[in-house]
Amino acid sequence: MSIVRVHNFSVSLDGYATGEGQSMEEPFGHADKKLVEWAFPTRTYQLMFGNDNGTTGADEAFANNWNRGIGAEIMGRNKFGPQRGPWADEEWKGWWGDEPPFHTPVFVLTHHNRPSIEMKGGTTFHFLDATPENALEAASEAAGGLDVRIGGGPTTVRQFLAADLIDYMHLAVVPIVLGRGERLWDGLEDIEGRFDIEAISTRSGVTHLTFTRN
Amino acid sequence: MSIVRVHNFSVSLDGYATGEGQSMEEPFGHADKKLVEWAFPTRTYQLMFGNDNGTTGADEAFANNWNRGIGAEIMGRNKFGPQRGPWADEEWKGWWGDEPPFHTPVFVLTHHNRPSIEMKGGTTFHFLDATPENALEAASEAAGGLDVRIGGGPTTVRQFLAADLIDYMHLAVVPIVLGRGERLWDGLEDIEGRFDIEAISTRSGVTHLTFTRN
Repeated sequence: MSIVRVHNFSVSLDGYATGEGQSMEEPFGHADKKLVEWAFPTRTYQLMFGNDNGTTGADEAFANNWNRGIGAEIMGRNKFGPQRGPWADEEWKGWWGDEPPFHTPVFVLTHHNRPSIEMKGGTTFHFLDATPENALEAASEAAGGLDVRIGGGPTTVRQFLAADLIDYMHLAVVPIVLGRGERLWDGLEDIEGRFDIEAISTRSGVTHLTFTRN
Repeated sequence: MSIVRVHNFSVSLDGYATGEGQSMEEPFGHADKKLVEWAFPTRTYQLMFGNDNGTTGADEAFANNWNRGIGAEIMGRNKFGPQRGPWADEEWKGWWGDEPPFHTPVFVLTHHNRPSIEMKGGTTFHFLDATPENALEAASEAAGGLDVRIGGGPTTVRQFLAADLIDYMHLAVVPIVLGRGERLWDGLEDIEGRFDIEAISTRSGVTHLTFTRN
């Protein structure tokens, strides 16, 4: 049975999953690399940059699950790019170059439609103005029986959690205090009751949390 | 050299260290026991209730450091009791019965003064309208060369962190989403830079974080 998963999603001690002030230069705003630097050394991330010498320890054991058995991703528009409002032009094709690491259909949630973009390596960006339920229906159909990943950012993950559409979620709690940005947890009081939660800290200082729907 | 320490201080995933709506029946407000239940089974806590059969595992290894080498505590008024504003009467002597578990002088921060209360077993409550710096001066003198514990609640710990007066802090991050209450981290952006931080998760599901001033 196909399920809906979140992977490698980093959250600060104060519950922020991205910083304030996203821009072309700073995809995570003032958080810069602090939320995601635990993942950079891992083999999974290094391979995205063509390097074959990433780490293979406990962080990698979590990181590399992100694309196994995934047939489609849903992401928020702010994960796709720093633009807001109507598209000024349609040149922007995401942060990931000609061949994005997804290799599946990717559904970008936005109120401002534009034509789909077929990239190298099997990634196609589709733009969708839809509720979480309807987006998931489209993604599930595109996933052809495989799982659907909710790719972020925080607003998107929060909406899917609020709609009770997530079956499995892997978070990395990073020991930093961001102070500003997008909070993951707003409106999700008591959500822990829906999941079996396990925690394991690793040498990098982050704590991996797995949420499995109970 | 005497230092300033925080111990066994529980924080939710969304950064709350107590719930909303504190009352006589609910010292932690709507958080009820969820923030502190990891600690209840430990030997340290069970001994406070006269039981000698508490757990002696990893959680206890953290819990039992709370009173070693401590000569005085500073706590906020909301840790002392649920009353607000001027004292309606002076009957209230804290939640802890005739013989509180502190066994040292305890300085309660409040804008509403009242006479000190000497309890059984060496605990004396003093009431102090003071800045963190001045309260620490009084507590340090009373501690006679031993360490001073900042006992909570969140507002008090936050004020002492903001004033850069804390040398060591042990937090337990509890995998719950409280949604409402008192947040620990407000105004403390980037505070991680002042500390060496280690994380270790235990079977109970909490993650113990140690902050050691660098």
